Amino acid sequence: MSNKTNQQWGGRFSEPTDAFVARFTASVDFDKRLYKQDIQGSVAHARMLTRVGVLSQDECDAILRGLGEIRVEIERGEFEWSVALEDVHMNIEAALTHKIGVVGKKLHTGRSRNDQVATDIRLYLRDETDLILDELSRLQQGLLELAEREADTIMPGFTHLQTAQPVTFGHHLMAWFEMLSRDYERFVDCRKRINILPLGAAALAGTTYPIDRHYTAELLKFTAPAGNSLDAVSDRDFAIEFCAASSLLLMHMTRMSEELVLWASAQFNFVDLPDRFCTGSSIMPQKKNPDVPELVRGKSGRVFGHLFSLLTLMKSQPLAYNKDNQEDKEPLFDTVDTVKGCLRAFADMVPALQARKEVMREAALRGFSTATDLADYLVRKGVAFRDAHEIVGLSVAYGIRTGKDLGQMELSELQQFSDIIAADVFSVLTLEGSVSARDHIGGTAPNQVRKAVVAGHQLLSGRDLHS
Amino acid sequence: MSNKTNQQWGGRFSEPTDAFVARFTASVDFDKRLYKQDIQGSVAHARMLTRVGVLSQDECDAILRGLGEIRVEIERGEFEWSVALEDVHMNIEAALTHKIGVVGKKLHTGRSRNDQVATDIRLYLRDETDLILDELSRLQQGLLELAEREADTIMPGFTHLQTAQPVTFGHHLMAWFEMLSRDYERFVDCRKRINILPLGAAALAGTTYPIDRHYTAELLKFTAPAGNSLDAVSDRDFAIEFCAASSLLLMHMTRMSEELVLWASAQFNFVDLPDRFCTGSSIMPQKKNPDVPELVRGKSGRVFGHLFSLLTLMKSQPLAYNKDNQEDKEPLFDTVDTVKGCLRAFADMVPALQARKEVMREAALRGFSTATDLADYLVRKGVAFRDAHEIVGLSVAYGIRTGKDLGQMELSELQQFSDIIAADVFSVLTLEGSVSARDHIGGTAPNQVRKAVVAGHQLLSGRDLHS
Amino acid sequence: MSNKTNQQWGGRFSEPTDAFVARFTASVDFDKRLYKQDIQGSVAHARMLTRVGVLSQDECDAILRGLGEIRVEIERGEFEWSVALEDVHMNIEAALTHKIGVVGKKLHTGRSRNDQVATDIRLYLRDETDLILDELSRLQQGLLELAEREADTIMPGFTHLQTAQPVTFGHHLMAWFEMLSRDYERFVDCRKRINILPLGAAALAGTTYPIDRHYTAELLKFTAPAGNSLDAVSDRDFAIEFCAASSLLLMHMTRMSEELVLWASAQFNFVDLPDRFCTGSSIMPQKKNPDVPELVRGKSGRVFGHLFSLLTLMKSQPLAYNKDNQEDKEPLFDTVDTVKGCLRAFADMVPALQARKEVMREAALRGFSTATDLADYLVRKGVAFRDAHEIVGLSVAYGIRTGKDLGQMELSELQQFSDIIAADVFSVLTLEGSVSARDHIGGTAPNQVRKAVVAGHQLLSGRDLHS
Amino acid sequence: MSNKTNQQWGGRFSEPTDAFVARFTASVDFDKRLYKQDIQGSVAHARMLTRVGVLSQDECDAILRGLGEIRVEIERGEFEWSVALEDVHMNIEAALTHKIGVVGKKLHTGRSRNDQVATDIRLYLRDETDLILDELSRLQQGLLELAEREADTIMPGFTHLQTAQPVTFGHHLMAWFEMLSRDYERFVDCRKRINILPLGAAALAGTTYPIDRHYTAELLKFTAPAGNSLDAVSDRDFAIEFCAASSLLLMHMTRMSEELVLWASAQFNFVDLPDRFCTGSSIMPQKKNPDVPELVRGKSGRVFGHLFSLLTLMKSQPLAYNKDNQEDKEPLFDTVDTVKGCLRAFADMVPALQARKEVMREAALRGFSTATDLADYLVRKGVAFRDAHEIVGLSVAYGIRTGKDLGQMELSELQQFSDIIAADVFSVLTLEGSVSARDHIGGTAPNQVRKAVVAGHQLLSGRDLHS
Repeated sequence: MSNKTNQQWGGRFSEPTDAFVARFTASVDFDKRLYKQDIQGSVAHARMLTRVGVLSQDECDAILRGLGEIRVEIERGEFEWSVALEDVHMNIEAALTHKIGVVGKKLHTGRSRNDQVATDIRLYLRDETDLILDELSRLQQGLLELAEREADTIMPGFTHLQTAQPVTFGHHLMAWFEMLSRDYERFVDCRKRINILPLGAAALAGTTYPIDRHYTAELLKFTAPAGNSLDAVSDRDFAIEFCAASSLLLMHMTRMSEELVLWASAQFNFVDLPDRFCTGSSIMPQKKNPDVPELVRGKSGRVFGHLFSLLTLMKSQPLAYNKDNQEDKEPLFDTVDTVKGCLRAFADMVPALQARKEVMREAALRGFSTATDLADYLVRKGVAFRDAHEIVGLSVAYGIRTGKDLGQMELSELQQFSDIIAADVFSVLTLEGSVSARDHIGGTAPNQVRKAVVAGHQLLSGRDLHS
Repeated sequence: MSNKTNQQWGGRFSEPTDAFVARFTASVDFDKRLYKQDIQGSVAHARMLTRVGVLSQDECDAILRGLGEIRVEIERGEFEWSVALEDVHMNIEAALTHKIGVVGKKLHTGRSRNDQVATDIRLYLRDETDLILDELSRLQQGLLELAEREADTIMPGFTHLQTAQPVTFGHHLMAWFEMLSRDYERFVDCRKRINILPLGAAALAGTTYPIDRHYTAELLKFTAPAGNSLDAVSDRDFAIEFCAASSLLLMHMTRMSEELVLWASAQFNFVDLPDRFCTGSSIMPQKKNPDVPELVRGKSGRVFGHLFSLLTLMKSQPLAYNKDNQEDKEPLFDTVDTVKGCLRAFADMVPALQARKEVMREAALRGFSTATDLADYLVRKGVAFRDAHEIVGLSVAYGIRTGKDLGQMELSELQQFSDIIAADVFSVLTLEGSVSARDHIGGTAPNQVRKAVVAGHQLLSGRDLHS
Repeated sequence: MSNKTNQQWGGRFSEPTDAFVARFTASVDFDKRLYKQDIQGSVAHARMLTRVGVLSQDECDAILRGLGEIRVEIERGEFEWSVALEDVHMNIEAALTHKIGVVGKKLHTGRSRNDQVATDIRLYLRDETDLILDELSRLQQGLLELAEREADTIMPGFTHLQTAQPVTFGHHLMAWFEMLSRDYERFVDCRKRINILPLGAAALAGTTYPIDRHYTAELLKFTAPAGNSLDAVSDRDFAIEFCAASSLLLMHMTRMSEELVLWASAQFNFVDLPDRFCTGSSIMPQKKNPDVPELVRGKSGRVFGHLFSLLTLMKSQPLAYNKDNQEDKEPLFDTVDTVKGCLRAFADMVPALQARKEVMREAALRGFSTATDLADYLVRKGVAFRDAHEIVGLSVAYGIRTGKDLGQMELSELQQFSDIIAADVFSVLTLEGSVSARDHIGGTAPNQVRKAVVAGHQLLSGRDLHS
Repeated sequence: MSNKTNQQWGGRFSEPTDAFVARFTASVDFDKRLYKQDIQGSVAHARMLTRVGVLSQDECDAILRGLGEIRVEIERGEFEWSVALEDVHMNIEAALTHKIGVVGKKLHTGRSRNDQVATDIRLYLRDETDLILDELSRLQQGLLELAEREADTIMPGFTHLQTAQPVTFGHHLMAWFEMLSRDYERFVDCRKRINILPLGAAALAGTTYPIDRHYTAELLKFTAPAGNSLDAVSDRDFAIEFCAASSLLLMHMTRMSEELVLWASAQFNFVDLPDRFCTGSSIMPQKKNPDVPELVRGKSGRVFGHLFSLLTLMKSQPLAYNKDNQEDKEPLFDTVDTVKGCLRAFADMVPALQARKEVMREAALRGFSTATDLADYLVRKGVAFRDAHEIVGLSVAYGIRTGKDLGQMELSELQQFSDIIAADVFSVLTLEGSVSARDHIGGTAPNQVRKAVVAGHQLLSGRDLHS
């Protein structure tokens, strides 16, 4: 019977839990991270129970005082966590009862661990989402500043990693900005669905006590109580949706990372990453490795994996709560930590990027990057686009054979392929002419980049989620 | 040079494409499904080019007429698709030029296949999302009707698949309704990010033609043009987000399916699925198998897999368009087809479910389902919850030994464990007493189920997305 | 410049690593778990360098002594791990140099962290695989014993979770045994590919020192040195393959878990799980929840997720080592821990299962489970199988209407559907008749179950991997 | 009753299947691909039934003749597939009965669609695995030939995509060869577990007919009959394991593809891909895009997704067969097609790669690629490795400041950092000196590459799976 002192459900059992099973099924090692939210939820629950008359004011005061002391103990590292007490909830409740006596046992009136843990996770994830939103804005702010500085810097634009057309570096950075804006929106949308109160669903069916769920929601700043108790205790959509939003964000960061790694290579040599964001080799003394983008790229797997972990977890679970759901926390915690770490590393690093403008420009001059401009020139002179394409294709084939880019050919050489080409062609074959001619919303002209930066600043300044 | 007649980019090439490679890299077998959107986008593009003076009105008329004829041919099955022409875009453009001559070649002015295909997919996915939203509403409507009919039907509520507390069947169905409401919201949120116009991004950098992207957006009913050309041609977030929303929906459907399969088993026997939704066995003459929920449950894997496929696809892709992205379509198409099929099957089947009320009630009477009510009774008489829990636990252990449920014990038997128990205990041990006592928002009381149904009808009637 | 004392690659750097970046990119918090394998590999490397004359015997002795002391310090918890020293390798090497002076710096001759870490992980995973193989055998042993005890116990066999035909419980358990046998084979196959030596690949290209890789392989009991240095430092196939084998194992365990949860429900009530493998509810005093199978079922998501994490990690990585690969360890470690924990829990629990034979038998008597036997009876009397199927189907429809199972009908009732049916039919409609008639290899006859158990014991006794 | 003419299980049903449900649950659209294996399995089953006396020789002859005619009709495109008949099995059986009368109905004696479909898939996958093994060998053969030609070609070896040390191109290609050798082994290991006979398991429990499963196995060239009927009808491990092996292969191909795309870029410019493996742009006339490696890289997502799809499918399925399993086929078929297509494309393309040797060599001369050689030189002169590393690090920092690679410095410049450096240093700073010094098994020395090629040829010639 000794297990009954530390297990709060032992009445109907005839033998204590197997020691390995107790460790195997305990969650306190990882869910103690939720102590703050657990206490926050308990405070609100106690106040609500007092308001509806289930607890007296004195009982409430004792509970609040006890919980306050426990929080201090935990934050000072003085709290003794016990695996035998299974989880954060039981650990705190047992400590409360130990501290304030039998009144502590009344706190659990009208609730269950099922709705309690769901409430804790939502509080936790709402707080973390807000931090992530802030860090996303900080990274975007850095991008805007860099894009503005590099609005006129010309580099080759690639498709299929082949030189396609000249673009501005600022324009390229604003493509990253756009990706992150969608990520921001998705986290905001997800937050709406996080911010719902499960408490009051009790074990699965609600409770017979006269609870006031709207009041609890108000105390905890939730938008509304969950509309169905069976759903409330078993719903983990918000965690999956959060991991999906995080997977998209990390996917974007792999794309940025891939480009940073390429650009830092000797072959591209487009940017310089400051030494403080790089590390060296234990064997090759010359190495300076772009560790941060590589590591971020690798961390995408972790987040994608957690998304699939949670989808698998929920697949085919009947209502309502099942023990499987204890497995929701570690993937979620690790996703939060990973997203925050990657964003912080990028928000610190990106503004410190140094563009090697001459190298970028030199690269843009090679690879027939203005071939499309020549085709467009022909179209403006009346040639159908598909025919212009053919003419330029033959000019390029000639250029490959003779080792000349289009801008390096004599007029007579160009005229071999079309006698419509005249001396005015050379102005469209310059890099500056090419980029500045793409002067419409979304285009790469420096003019448009600066407009996009202004719009970006307005977007950021309009964000005001947490008020 | 023979490949030039059917390849629109052959000028700089010295040998034709390898025959296997041509087949391996062609997409027309699956992207021809986009013919309607491709023509719709081309019509808008031609009208825009005409408005800004790149095409004359006559040219525009010829193009629109030609495209109209092509659409009719395709829908009649008279169009000849050619793998040599690679994709739906080139097939239609070649047919147009064949039909109306050199003017057809002008249609591609100021655009590229990169922005064209991105536009086509978004148009397609927006249409399909609207159909899915409608079908979701239809399924939810069916649930509301069934939940209303079954608002008083009592069944055992389960946690850990163990009898937990009595709930109403209507309440259980409304848990499903809640899940689907979140799915609906997610598709609506996703639709906002689908409904953005890539056209005008051209290959990657915008175009030198004086295009009016706002006008094109207006013609195609897009909210706005995409803000950055490099991003516009390479962004597939909307497809991934759609697959994530679909994965959550399918995950919910696995949970419903799991329950339907359980309930249709001889052991549960809670519902009857009409014969028309079941199939038999080629060898066991007595079998009536719940094929529809089983198959839907299995189809979750398909959708989760497509989500992971698309995340993998985009991982580490540098800007801008890469050929990898051709692989975006088949997972997306199959996700759309699967979601629509599963929703249709459920929307047809769910309202036809027959609850076996007596069996459900009988099951709820077993398994000590009112044990929590006994504990709450004790608490109301002044016992601390944790002590009440212990008293009931011992009563249950006694009940297991003697084969009696709580409601079947004599008062004296119950009083063995606490002398606070009095004759008034028996009213709280009835099923009706138990469910009707959980009478707060989200609780299982029939009263609350009916309120939730009313709120559900209001929610559905307020949906008006497509206007 | 202070960072140079604790960073072993700082010569070419002009500023110290950013403090957050140092933490973000360090791995020592999780890779210190490899200390034993790291020292084991270093010992072998030092002995090989001595044999080929790169180190003197005295140097080797000093190194071995130093490493031995470090190992003792680590195991006593007296070792100070430093994040500034990045990883387990640098921590141990720095401690060695601190302990034995400049000779410690010679240990890294002819190797790099790239081949060192690959060697450490393989040593680690080989050891863990051997433990897993042993635990798999233990679980299979438990299944054999239980299957033998239950070789005659009759239960309903299900397809589509509908009663299909009677089977023996022993036969059902032997299906689990078969799944685990394939898992065992897969881990053995995977082990072959783990057991290859990367050391000697150095950073990526091999080394200029006259190393003897065959000798190192022999010392570490690897089958052979890896055949290509670029591949050796970047290959993580073995980790992915291990996670794939683990995913299949966990998938099997979800299937067993699902059945255990079903069987433990009040509706099935086929087995009793001992109390020591179950836990209770904080709110519902009567609950006894099958936590172990539920938790194992939930843990499948974790392992599937890690598999996808590692596939994502490696996607599109160019040769040779990239920092991304630091992310290989945590998913692998957690997979190992999860597999071992789940196997242990099952190996302890499964032999303790108590079958409720009467409940199983009663369930098998319902649901027309001998319908196929009736069809087969008709075939033996000359009816074509498809016609027999039709006759039995009509008999079942009659049974549903009248509430009688086939064995409960009068002969005259059965003869309504075929006058070929005679009094000898009743022997084929018994449960014992049904199961014992399936008496061929793989069939459910008790006779066959006992044969399968004998074959299982032979299989287990023939396993002798680690010699 | 009209549905009974085309449904073989309708006896106990009171209404026909809903028309949409019939389409939704039918599989014939995709499983008709298995017609050859279905007939092959039926032929063996009929011959076995004849041998054990269940069928007469005349009946067997009629069945074999009918099946032969059906096969011809299918291959001529003259067979009418019916969705109402659900699947390939029922379509063929109905056609057989139509053709040969009541004897056709006897073919299904002693089997069920559950064991039939499991047999068909295994036969199919075994055949396809053999084709894949052959194609893998062909690709490896091409690599050996190319590696031999390029055994002396020097290129920069990369870690972190930074120049690390010079390697030979042949060595790099042999790294790919190693990856594919492991893939080959995994498919061979998987094939062992595919090649097991389910037939005889019948619906789930075996059959009452006196079947001879060893004889059927022998006729179909399976290694052995499956050992447990419940497992046999529900096991899909072989499909999952096949998809896992395929995922690893595709992962390797993304790595090769990534390198090919990098090497084909203007910035690297290491290889030339023949025009016939590339395509162009509809808008940019100069483009020559490496479509094949890009598309293969993208197809990895598809295969990873199918693996996850099948794991999800099987998660939590109770024994034995459930309808969910119908979803096993499409992911498997698409995986097979994708693997075969990607291998064929690479086996054709890889031998046609043209290395730009001068560009590779020039790249290897930059980036201090021989820094490790300098450190090793110092160690040979008595400097401890870690001190040598520091000296070289400072030399590199000096080289970056002055724009000189190590081999371009004066002796006096090098001596600034260590007076141990003498005139003999310059021989170790050459590319040829560097690569040829790594002359041990697995090292990059041309000598070792040639040895590895010889060993590779021996490996390929020893493969002889299908005899």
